[in-house]
Amino acid sequence: MIDDPHPADSGLRTGEVAVPLPDATNAGVYFIGTIHTPWRTRTACPKRGDLAGPLCRIVVDERWRVALTGIARHKRILVLYWMHQARRDLVLQMPYHSGQTTGTFALRSPVRPNPIACSVVELVAVDGNTLQVRGLDCLDGTPLIDIKAEQAGSGG
Amino acid sequence: MIDDPHPADSGLRTGEVAVPLPDATNAGVYFIGTIHTPWRTRTACPKRGDLAGPLCRIVVDERWRVALTGIARHKRILVLYWMHQARRDLVLQMPYHSGQTTGTFALRSPVRPNPIACSVVELVAVDGNTLQVRGLDCLDGTPLIDIKAEQAGSGG
Repeated sequence: MIDDPHPADSGLRTGEVAVPLPDATNAGVYFIGTIHTPWRTRTACPKRGDLAGPLCRIVVDERWRVALTGIARHKRILVLYWMHQARRDLVLQMPYHSGQTTGTFALRSPVRPNPIACSVVELVAVDGNTLQVRGLDCLDGTPLIDIKAEQAGSGG
Repeated sequence: MIDDPHPADSGLRTGEVAVPLPDATNAGVYFIGTIHTPWRTRTACPKRGDLAGPLCRIVVDERWRVALTGIARHKRILVLYWMHQARRDLVLQMPYHSGQTTGTFALRSPVRPNPIACSVVELVAVDGNTLQVRGLDCLDGTPLIDIKAEQAGSGG
């Protein structure tokens, strides 16, 4: 398995280290919608989002639709999503691009204890509960967990 | 309760709307450490993080310590944390600063379906499993859920 290009599906690469996961999680996340992109496999996904990339669609569940009120005022939004196919137990990883073993928290890899991604995207259009955006890099069907007004460098 | 300054503790302000939460969550989050800040109450917290603000301490649980390997190379990191005191059911909110009813997803308020904050902070020092940072705005004792190398505008 040393040369396996998909450690999340199977084994570890040389230098990679996994730890036992805790027995239980500490809080629960609601999936609040679904992200539609052109990418059907993880290898097809771009390494990072491109604000000049293809249009992607974020569909927010009806329950949360009213929470989009006022979103169209924002040119850029922050999108949080759950990288549901990633394993969660690696503390050291060997990214292909660097070939250097690195700690999970010094990387942006989807493989991490909590597989939550944050992407700044360009908001192109809002139609009911659907947003058209550019700048995502995730799999088609990825669960949405949050949308926030962008505000560089700030918390919340 | 109309003038209640803490809707997350009690009622709603005029114009605010709550929805029933789903019966179950869809994924679980591990708390991977604890954030120590000078702020003991929500009203004491700054409205947003300030990279020239006070030093705060992020203590990563021993289980995940090795995942910090290589973090010191980064001047800025992205910190994700769980805003454990925030209610999760508001779709319309009335922020004090604007006085205008706005959808949750057009705000950075801690009150949201998944109370996850993303802050870009300055990494000042690393000592074992403890990071000294500037730029946080959260309560003392806030649960940490992720640390990522900063990479503006990208996913992961």
